[in-house]
Amino acid sequence: MLRNVSRKGLRRRILGLGLGKEKSASSFSQFLKSPTRLVSLDHPDIWTLPPPPTTASSCSNSTASVIDGRLIAEEIRLGIASEVRRMKESIGKVPGLAVILVGQRRESQIYVSKKIEACNEVGIKSISTKLPECCTEDEVLNVLTSFDKNPSVHGILVQLPLPPHLNEAKILNAISLEKDVDGFNPLNMGNLAMRGREPFFIPCAAKGCVELLLQSGIEIMGKKAVVIGRSNIVGLPTSLLLQRHHATVTVLDAFTRNPECISSEADIVVSAAGVPNLVRGSWLKPGAVVIDVGTIPIEDPSCELGFRLTGDVCYEEAVRVASVVTPVPGGVGPMTVAMLLFNTLESAKRVCDF
Amino acid sequence: MLRNVSRKGLRRRILGLGLGKEKSASSFSQFLKSPTRLVSLDHPDIWTLPPPPTTASSCSNSTASVIDGRLIAEEIRLGIASEVRRMKESIGKVPGLAVILVGQRRESQIYVSKKIEACNEVGIKSISTKLPECCTEDEVLNVLTSFDKNPSVHGILVQLPLPPHLNEAKILNAISLEKDVDGFNPLNMGNLAMRGREPFFIPCAAKGCVELLLQSGIEIMGKKAVVIGRSNIVGLPTSLLLQRHHATVTVLDAFTRNPECISSEADIVVSAAGVPNLVRGSWLKPGAVVIDVGTIPIEDPSCELGFRLTGDVCYEEAVRVASVVTPVPGGVGPMTVAMLLFNTLESAKRVCDF
Repeated sequence: MLRNVSRKGLRRRILGLGLGKEKSASSFSQFLKSPTRLVSLDHPDIWTLPPPPTTASSCSNSTASVIDGRLIAEEIRLGIASEVRRMKESIGKVPGLAVILVGQRRESQIYVSKKIEACNEVGIKSISTKLPECCTEDEVLNVLTSFDKNPSVHGILVQLPLPPHLNEAKILNAISLEKDVDGFNPLNMGNLAMRGREPFFIPCAAKGCVELLLQSGIEIMGKKAVVIGRSNIVGLPTSLLLQRHHATVTVLDAFTRNPECISSEADIVVSAAGVPNLVRGSWLKPGAVVIDVGTIPIEDPSCELGFRLTGDVCYEEAVRVASVVTPVPGGVGPMTVAMLLFNTLESAKRVCDF
Repeated sequence: MLRNVSRKGLRRRILGLGLGKEKSASSFSQFLKSPTRLVSLDHPDIWTLPPPPTTASSCSNSTASVIDGRLIAEEIRLGIASEVRRMKESIGKVPGLAVILVGQRRESQIYVSKKIEACNEVGIKSISTKLPECCTEDEVLNVLTSFDKNPSVHGILVQLPLPPHLNEAKILNAISLEKDVDGFNPLNMGNLAMRGREPFFIPCAAKGCVELLLQSGIEIMGKKAVVIGRSNIVGLPTSLLLQRHHATVTVLDAFTRNPECISSEADIVVSAAGVPNLVRGSWLKPGAVVIDVGTIPIEDPSCELGFRLTGDVCYEEAVRVASVVTPVPGGVGPMTVAMLLFNTLESAKRVCDF
């Protein structure tokens, strides 16, 4: 930073290199401070767990409207069902979704069965393949390839997370872009990020969040939005989609200093950190809109399924501060499934030119 | 939002659709509020022009260190030159960069000649093709294809902006990913955005900004960063790269309400809006680090080239508030060129397995 060498001087220095002043290969990496591989930067997000909230026995101070995600999703599914029926009657074809589930993870099994059930309900044909936890990458890829070649399959979904011995990126990449209804292919994500580009599919949870805002009449353009969490599945695409809608977006992660302060300045808070009760009342600006994408299974023998879902947001505190909140369950969850159906329908319509 | 219909009820409603209650095709688009195409959301960023600063006759109150981008870039070019020479001596090959320039745009001509000159200086072989303003898309694509097939070309660069009659996305997409040293391919951008993924190339201006920060010993992790502007070329990749380095990033655009307030809370401000003097002293937190990527040509007959470059940042105000600033010219500009050379070298090393 201190001195300036003329261009001529540099040329002389470069030429000088030939005179026995050759740098060794090992010194090559030293002239850039940037890491050779970005993956080396991928530290896990470990959030500091907040103290549990004091149980509020009633929500009598509640000021927030609660967005009924189930009802909005239902209306959308109704529209999809109508369109599927029109497609069948017009061209004799229906959309098809193929789902691959690896292993016995309980929540994954439930999510897959919910998706299949939702397909059946709206008339989308579904195929599911279950593979054992110990299956090989090739076995998964073989199933994917057969779905990819099947013209009656318009969408392919690999339920995440995969067992750790399988390469998630490699498997997701094997889904052809035209059938990647989850929208997790990096080309699709790049097209979502870049102005002037159009992704084939908008990832379902992100689209579900924004659709909830739009259906609830909440303006996005020019608003300060905070997205908590930066997963490839939710946080990243949601931040990109909100930016496409001209929100001013800040992405918070576990490395953020004083996230509470930043969050409490936002008009719209979308939380997808996967940490129960992370977002307390003090994280919210009075009148903020709160979209809770957290869906963390908590053991609960009193529930039919043996667990209940909880969100990132401390609901009983949020309803006293925010103007609008989404519940968990019954908020973003049903919307995510509806958007999967929507993407599958869109895919079929694109292929069939309908 | 008001009522809840049971699943059974929905099934009945869906079945009811068959009984002469078919929704018409035109109503399909109505059940989602999300726009059919995201491109329709791509409003131009028109920033409100700030009043011109009162000219400060001296910078005697300056507190900021000035990052000498020229010197840092020179050191990097020296390292690249050394490595190119080592490559030539070891395997008899040198990296090759092909540049395509369409039209007579003065600044573009100057930028291209600077890039070619920098290539020559470090021993990278360069080829440039100039096409007339009125050329067809096919003519550009033909040149691209020939470069793409040429094994001595390891990087291909199309100087932007292109004349408006040419489809920029289509032309950039035609550069194979392995030679896209500008890193503007959406697949590359998606890989930059997604955790666990690795882009082939990091876009040069973004890499230049982060490298300046790293070389200057500025910590990024956990810092509040603001990126002003969201172009595909600078703003977007810079925000993504800073996030990969665990900064908490907010992207400001022309739709942001009170950008001055948000910017003045940031530890690191990267401005790439292309608006002279947009970032005033009041936009900066005392002690902030300011990276000015704006390079706006201003007519100036007294300059050798007939114009001088100015940045987004009101320099004379910034140096009194910030702890570190980059000048324009001599800050990010030379770093961007150095990163282009670096990416071309990396590409050649990858192809030659060197």
